[in-house]
Parts: sequence; C-alpha cells; structure tokens
Amino acid sequence: MAEFEEPIERLIEYFRALPGVGRKTAQRYAFYVIENNSEKAKNFARAIVDVKEKVKLCKECGNYSASEICPICARRNKQIICVVQEPKDVVSMEKVKSFEGVYHILFGCINPLENKGPNDIKIKELLARVSKDNVKEVIMATNPDVEGEATAMYIAKVLKPLGVKVTRLAQGISIGSDIEFADEVTLEKALRQRQEI
Amino acid sequence: MAEFEEPIERLIEYFRALPGVGRKTAQRYAFYVIENNSEKAKNFARAIVDVKEKVKLCKECGNYSASEICPICARRNKQIICVVQEPKDVVSMEKVKSFEGVYHILFGCINPLENKGPNDIKIKELLARVSKDNVKEVIMATNPDVEGEATAMYIAKVLKPLGVKVTRLAQGISIGSDIEFADEVTLEKALRQRQEI
Repeated sequence: MAEFEEPIERLIEYFRALPGVGRKTAQRYAFYVIENNSEKAKNFARAIVDVKEKVKLCKECGNYSASEICPICARRNKQIICVVQEPKDVVSMEKVKSFEGVYHILFGCINPLENKGPNDIKIKELLARVSKDNVKEVIMATNPDVEGEATAMYIAKVLKPLGVKVTRLAQGISIGSDIEFADEVTLEKALRQRQEI
Repeated sequence: MAEFEEPIERLIEYFRALPGVGRKTAQRYAFYVIENNSEKAKNFARAIVDVKEKVKLCKECGNYSASEICPICARRNKQIICVVQEPKDVVSMEKVKSFEGVYHILFGCINPLENKGPNDIKIKELLARVSKDNVKEVIMATNPDVEGEATAMYIAKVLKPLGVKVTRLAQGISIGSDIEFADEVTLEKALRQRQEI
C-alpha cells in the first residue's frame, strides 16, 4: 500500500532499490530531497544521468572509467597486474599507495553453486593482456573465501604455461586485531606461512 | 582528494549529502547506479526532479502534498487536529489506523538555544485553522522532550482562550518494553498518571 502520494512514493521506491536501504531510510532520503533546494535536486538528477551516459568499462582492465582507458591503465606499470573480483576492490587496493601496477577486474568469481564458470568472468581478457603486455607478475587479489580461492587457483593454472609469475595476497592475522578473536582457519594459515624475523 | 573520475565522484558527493550516508555507502550507491540499466537510472533522476516540481505544502496542514489540499485534509474530520513537529511524524501517527482527524505540521518546535521562537514555527496558521474550522480538539503530538513539551504548553496556552479542548499524547512506559530498563523520568510520569483498571 502506498503511504504517500505519487511523486513522493515513486522516489521512495527508487531510493529503496539502492543496496541496503529499507523503507524508513528511503523515506528519510526522499524528505531530504523535498526539503532541499530545487537547484541541488536537479544537479543530483543530472549526476545520475551523467554517470550512466559517460561511465564505461576501461578497455584494458575493465574498471569503470570516463575515458576509453582508465587513468590507472594510462599511467602505470602494465607489467604487474593485480586481479580483483569487483571494481570496489580496486578502491580498497588503491589505499596501498605503494602499488605501482595496474588492475584486472574479473566481475565475479568461479562459483559452481551459482552456475558461474571460467567463461562467465573475464579470464580470457586477462590472458590476452598477459600475452600482449609482456606481463611479469599477476597478483591474485580475489577474496579469501572458497570461491575466491578456487578462482585464484584456476587462473594460476591457466597462466603458468605463459611463463608468468603468479602470486597471491598473503593470508594471516590482520594488523591491529587480537589473536584471541582470530578464527582457527586464519590462525592455521598464519602459522603455516610464518615468516622468519 | 577525488578517488574517482569526474562523473562518478560527483554522483558519490550527491549521495553523500543524503542524511546518514558516509563515503563508503555513497560509493556503493553510485556503483549500484552504474551497474543498473540506463532506463532505471533515467527514471530515478526523473523521480528526483518530479518530487521537487510537484510536491508542495498542503494549504491546510502544511504537510508535503502533490495537490493544493493533501488527501488527509481533503477527506477527514477537520474538527480534530493532531499537531506534530515534522512531516515524518505524520507517517508514524498514521500507523494508528483509528485516528480520523487531520494534522498540523509546525515544522520545528520552540527552542531558545537555536533561537527558535513561537513566530518561527507554524503556530499562527494553527490558530487560523482553529477559528475557521470550528475545531473541537487539538491533540499535541510534539516530541516528549524539553522542547516538544514547552511547545505543547505554549500552544495550549494560546489556544485556551479560543475555547478549544487541548490534549497531549499520554506519556508512560512503552508497550512491550521492560520496567527494568525504563528511565526514572518515564516511570515517574507513568506512576503519576496511573489509570484505574
């Protein structure tokens, strides 16, 4: 049942479609728009349309970009590729200021339960880049769960014949966390891959 | 520092302006828009513009409305007015299906600390309605805090000479709550206003 009149209810529904937004939050957002000035609302609407019109996938890495080649691919070392599952993972990785290489976005991972095989994610494109750009190292930064692990293993297997070094982000206890609260799988990994100091 | 290219960064900033939205959430919303189809994004943008163009304040109660007179004022008993601080309070009150009266939105409350006096909220409009519509009862549903209480008292005082009955929502322990966790002010009110059973 619609609680509000048409234009308000419609806006609430669009806000509600955003990830993690419930009815009450959507209502707060809609009220914010109503209470704000018209100019701002128009610019907000414009920004939504602009993003859809101007943002495409980078021809190299597949990340969202306003240009054919994204700023990262345009400027950085193409011989080191960090492979991630989603564009949002690039944002996290970029916080590591020291990484000088480029990215490759798979848009998912191999997941038999969801009927997603190697051909459903961008592995072919990765192989093409490795051959073309004389890539020295591929760093697998897929998620540290069953699917991400399987995807990393699969890609490592198909890359090996091309003579490229394939690495995986180290797994272990997080900096600043507590040993007391670390789960056993993480602790076991951390123990097995212990480093000499 | 802008983490993303222009159209994406701009959309993130607009999402971030929404109440309670931080950088990370705004980014999730923007990615949702990018990943969604263009048609939906256009309609979302349209909904924002529409709301600003079509939604006005109801000439009677002051609530947001797509028509001159909102559906509640158009259809219900004008002789009982429930006075609330904000439009969102109407949404909550309307969950009480049995209320047959109309509303009056003050758009704030008397708050000396924020330099808000009786002339800064819609009290004059309320007085005009009480005189015009032969109102029998005004129910004060301002918030149960210092400012809401003071506002209710003030309005009751100015309404009394007009011979209208002024009531206040009952205050006491919430249904389903625990006596153990009730604060002392609430308990004191509940005790003082105890009802015979």
